[in-house]
Amino acid sequence: MNSLDQIDIILCRPSHTGNIGAAARAMKNMGLSNLKLVAPRSAPDGEAIARASGADDILDNAKIYDTLDEALADRELVFGTSARSRHLPWTLLAPKEAAEKAIENAEQKMAIVFGNERTGLTNEELTKCHYHVNIPTVSSFSSLNLGAAVQVICYELYGAYLNAQSRPPKSPRQLATGEQMASFYQHWQDIMIRLGFLDRTHPKLLMRRIRRIFNRAELDQREINILRGFLSAVDKDEP
Amino acid sequence: MNSLDQIDIILCRPSHTGNIGAAARAMKNMGLSNLKLVAPRSAPDGEAIARASGADDILDNAKIYDTLDEALADRELVFGTSARSRHLPWTLLAPKEAAEKAIENAEQKMAIVFGNERTGLTNEELTKCHYHVNIPTVSSFSSLNLGAAVQVICYELYGAYLNAQSRPPKSPRQLATGEQMASFYQHWQDIMIRLGFLDRTHPKLLMRRIRRIFNRAELDQREINILRGFLSAVDKDEP
Repeated sequence: MNSLDQIDIILCRPSHTGNIGAAARAMKNMGLSNLKLVAPRSAPDGEAIARASGADDILDNAKIYDTLDEALADRELVFGTSARSRHLPWTLLAPKEAAEKAIENAEQKMAIVFGNERTGLTNEELTKCHYHVNIPTVSSFSSLNLGAAVQVICYELYGAYLNAQSRPPKSPRQLATGEQMASFYQHWQDIMIRLGFLDRTHPKLLMRRIRRIFNRAELDQREINILRGFLSAVDKDEP
Repeated sequence: MNSLDQIDIILCRPSHTGNIGAAARAMKNMGLSNLKLVAPRSAPDGEAIARASGADDILDNAKIYDTLDEALADRELVFGTSARSRHLPWTLLAPKEAAEKAIENAEQKMAIVFGNERTGLTNEELTKCHYHVNIPTVSSFSSLNLGAAVQVICYELYGAYLNAQSRPPKSPRQLATGEQMASFYQHWQDIMIRLGFLDRTHPKLLMRRIRRIFNRAELDQREINILRGFLSAVDKDEP
C-alpha cells in the first residue's frame, strides 16, 4: 500500500476557493489525492479549477463535511498545523518530523488538518489532533498562504515517502543491546584498572569519553563480539 | 551579516502578477527580501498586492530587468530551479542541499532563479547557473505553481538559516588526521597479532571491521590519544 494514499488533507473553513485549487495542485504534484473540506465558504468553483491547473480530479473527488469531527471520523492519526505560540501542551513537530512520522505509520489512516486563512485552527480543533505541526517563519510575518502551507507539508510528505522507498526494507544490522554495551564498558573498565591506565587520570571522565566513542559508533552484534573477543585476549595475556 | 540578505530571488518572465505577489509573501514569511523580476509580462499590480498579503514592501522594492544577465551582474553564486530530466550535465541538487549550500556561502552574493510558469527556465538561462535545483514531484504531474515553488525553496533556505544559527559557531572537535588513524590501526593490529587474536580468524576481514567501527565513530584528537594510551598500556603489560 502506498502510504501517501493513507493521508487525507483536510481544509477547515477555507474562505477562498482559489486556495482550495492551489491545495489540490500541491497535493497532486506530491502524490497525494484525498482532499476533505470542512464547512468551506464556497464549494470549489471556476477559480478553484483555474488554480488547480489540472488537478481537477482531486477537486471532483473532494468530500465536503459540516464539522471536523465528521471529517475525522475514520482517522486514526491526526496532525494539526498550528502557529508557534499556542498555549497548548502539545508536541510541536517540524514539517519534516511530522512527515517522517506519517510515512512510518502507513498502516494507520491519517489526516493533516489546516485551518482558516485568517484565523488558523481554533484551540478546539487543535485538541482533536494528536500532533501539532508548525512551519517555521519569521515572527514578524508568520501567516503563510493556505495553499503555500499545504505545499510545504505535501513537499515534506513526498520527500519522506521517497526516502522510505529508497531505504532497504529492513536493516540487517542488529545493534548491540543496552545490556551488551553495559557489560562491554564494564569489561573495558576492569582491564583499564588492571593495567593501571584508569588510575592515571580522572577515572569517571575517561570512562565517559570511552562510552561516547562507542555510543557514536553504534556497534552491531558482530562488532561487539569482535571487541569483547579482543578484550578477552588482552585478559588472557596477564602475566 | 544575515545570510538570507545575500540571496536574491529572481523570477524570469513571470506571466501572472498573482504569482509575483505570492512569491513576495513566501519570501517575507521566510526572512528573504530581495526580489528581482526579469521581463515580467506585467509589473506588480493590484492582483500582486492582494496575493502578497502584506509583503508590499518586497513588491515595492522589487527591481525589474530586461535580461537575466543584467539581474545576475553582481551575483557570485547562482542556483537555477529546473525540471528533473534536462539533458544538461549539471549538478542537480535537492532543495535542502541547495539551501544548505547557500547558507554556508554567506560571504557570496547569491541568486535563486525561477523560470516562466509554463516553460520554466530555458536551457540558455540554466547555463548561467552554477547549480540546478529540482523540487521532487510525481512524474505524471510535475509542474508546481510558481509561488508554491518559491515557497518550498524559501522554506528550505529559512530552515537552513535557523539550523546554522543554532549551531555553535565553530566545532571545538579537532578530528584525528588520516595519518593518526593509520598509525592507530597499525598499533591495534600489532597487538592483536601479538595476542594471537588476529590469527584465529580472517585477519584482513577482522581489521576491516575494526576500521569500520572507528571510522564511524569519527575520533577526535583527545579520543585517539585515549585509545593510543590504552593500547600502549596493553603493550607494557607484556609478560
